[in-house]
Amino acid sequence: MNLNNSTTKISKELLDFALSSVVQSPNTIEENRRKLMNPTTQQMLTRGSIRKFDASKPVSKELLDHLLTAMIQAPSYVGGQQFSVIVVQDPAQKEKIYEYTMPASGKGMTYIQQAPIFLIFVMDFNKIETAMKVENTEIQVTDSLEALLIGTVDVGILVEAFTVAAESHGLGTVTVGAIRKCSAQIIKDFNLPQKTFPIVGMAVGFPAEGVLPKVTPRLPLSGIIHYDTYNAQGFSNVLAEYNETMKQLYAKRGIELSWTKLLSNYYSKPIYKDLTEIYKGQGFKF
Amino acid sequence: MNLNNSTTKISKELLDFALSSVVQSPNTIEENRRKLMNPTTQQMLTRGSIRKFDASKPVSKELLDHLLTAMIQAPSYVGGQQFSVIVVQDPAQKEKIYEYTMPASGKGMTYIQQAPIFLIFVMDFNKIETAMKVENTEIQVTDSLEALLIGTVDVGILVEAFTVAAESHGLGTVTVGAIRKCSAQIIKDFNLPQKTFPIVGMAVGFPAEGVLPKVTPRLPLSGIIHYDTYNAQGFSNVLAEYNETMKQLYAKRGIELSWTKLLSNYYSKPIYKDLTEIYKGQGFKF
Repeated sequence: MNLNNSTTKISKELLDFALSSVVQSPNTIEENRRKLMNPTTQQMLTRGSIRKFDASKPVSKELLDHLLTAMIQAPSYVGGQQFSVIVVQDPAQKEKIYEYTMPASGKGMTYIQQAPIFLIFVMDFNKIETAMKVENTEIQVTDSLEALLIGTVDVGILVEAFTVAAESHGLGTVTVGAIRKCSAQIIKDFNLPQKTFPIVGMAVGFPAEGVLPKVTPRLPLSGIIHYDTYNAQGFSNVLAEYNETMKQLYAKRGIELSWTKLLSNYYSKPIYKDLTEIYKGQGFKF
Repeated sequence: MNLNNSTTKISKELLDFALSSVVQSPNTIEENRRKLMNPTTQQMLTRGSIRKFDASKPVSKELLDHLLTAMIQAPSYVGGQQFSVIVVQDPAQKEKIYEYTMPASGKGMTYIQQAPIFLIFVMDFNKIETAMKVENTEIQVTDSLEALLIGTVDVGILVEAFTVAAESHGLGTVTVGAIRKCSAQIIKDFNLPQKTFPIVGMAVGFPAEGVLPKVTPRLPLSGIIHYDTYNAQGFSNVLAEYNETMKQLYAKRGIELSWTKLLSNYYSKPIYKDLTEIYKGQGFKF
């Protein structure tokens, strides 16, 4: 969703929908909220993942470099830039990732095939180890859980930085956590060395014609934000209503589902049991 | 750095510096790069952390709500919003965090005291467990490393989303990973329940008068971005030059340091050894 230049325009309807879905309750859509919106926050408030790309519309090397350059200025722990990003453009490699991430249902993520670019965000202490050789010191942080926290937060920051930059240029993105299902294959296929680990993927491209971002309502702030102490009541108070909102939204999209059902589907079974072993195999300890 | 409205203006000098420091080499500052800049990417390219706040200038509740609302529309794994954010405004609590995070040098992070707001970003599967009770299912993902990856990436995304939104409104931020040094105290002081874990903090406020973001040069793209396969050579090729750039930058800031020395200082000793135990104590397994 590009709101910074005039090449695309957000419709009043989408904006109204987005606002009504993200604010605390419809009654709070007040004039002063609208007044606080600037092009950046408006873009953020009306964003949604794009899952259908225009395969015929490439992303130029210049635009990609511009977005990546903007992305890496984002905060990084001690400025260490504990990450690498693999740009996957080869159709055969994208096809492999599509196959690896195929869910049991057999309905694969076709946007991995369609998108002109698939990014793999890698936590990277291999380069840190290389850098430390200049000082003749040995890396020890990778023997601690701390390395994983540093690396994954760094990667999460990059994911959002790229998303914001890309959307400001009219591109669409969708984040793909499912690459963790096939960590071992990703490590092998992309020659990821010791002290690196693939964290998350992202399909990037121009949205297919007529495809607008689907803005998904979030929990009201009172279900997420706590003041000065954690208070579980805030979430409990809003859960039933949010679940109903999401149920209605899924119904509109032709799916019989609720938020709690979705979470149960994902989280009630042990997943990626071998992740710890693969992680340790890359030279990390806890 | 607010580039979206006219209340603050970026100087041509800062922009030139930022561009010359972030592009591949001075020779590549071409007209077409500048053409690709829009207000969003310009803001991102010229950002830097703010470590000195105007303690007398509060952030209004309306502005904070606006930023938080924009923040939570960012992508989240399966839309699960596996996070909570604690807004710390109480000076006594901020003082405690300042003490907990005090480095051995005794030079504490005074911006934690100064900032009108300190945010604690918490990975939160406690609420997911609560939500799943609606379906009479039990959470199992927290027995896997996958939960940590989901939660920390979700948090990293939030950190950057808040940063971008806040900077678009002229606020400054600095991310504080050092709260992991005092995870146990944070858990206790803020009553974080089982299946939650504090990941990162952030000081937020209006910059003190005259304080501009210090734009820190990043590695050239060729040291971070890989095409279709991981290639360690890219980083090795640029390391010496980047290290020299950073050495000169530190010298300008009155510090005798290089990038490789900085990394050695942080990463050559085992840190936060008890993190795994504290994490497990919150009801997680690997």
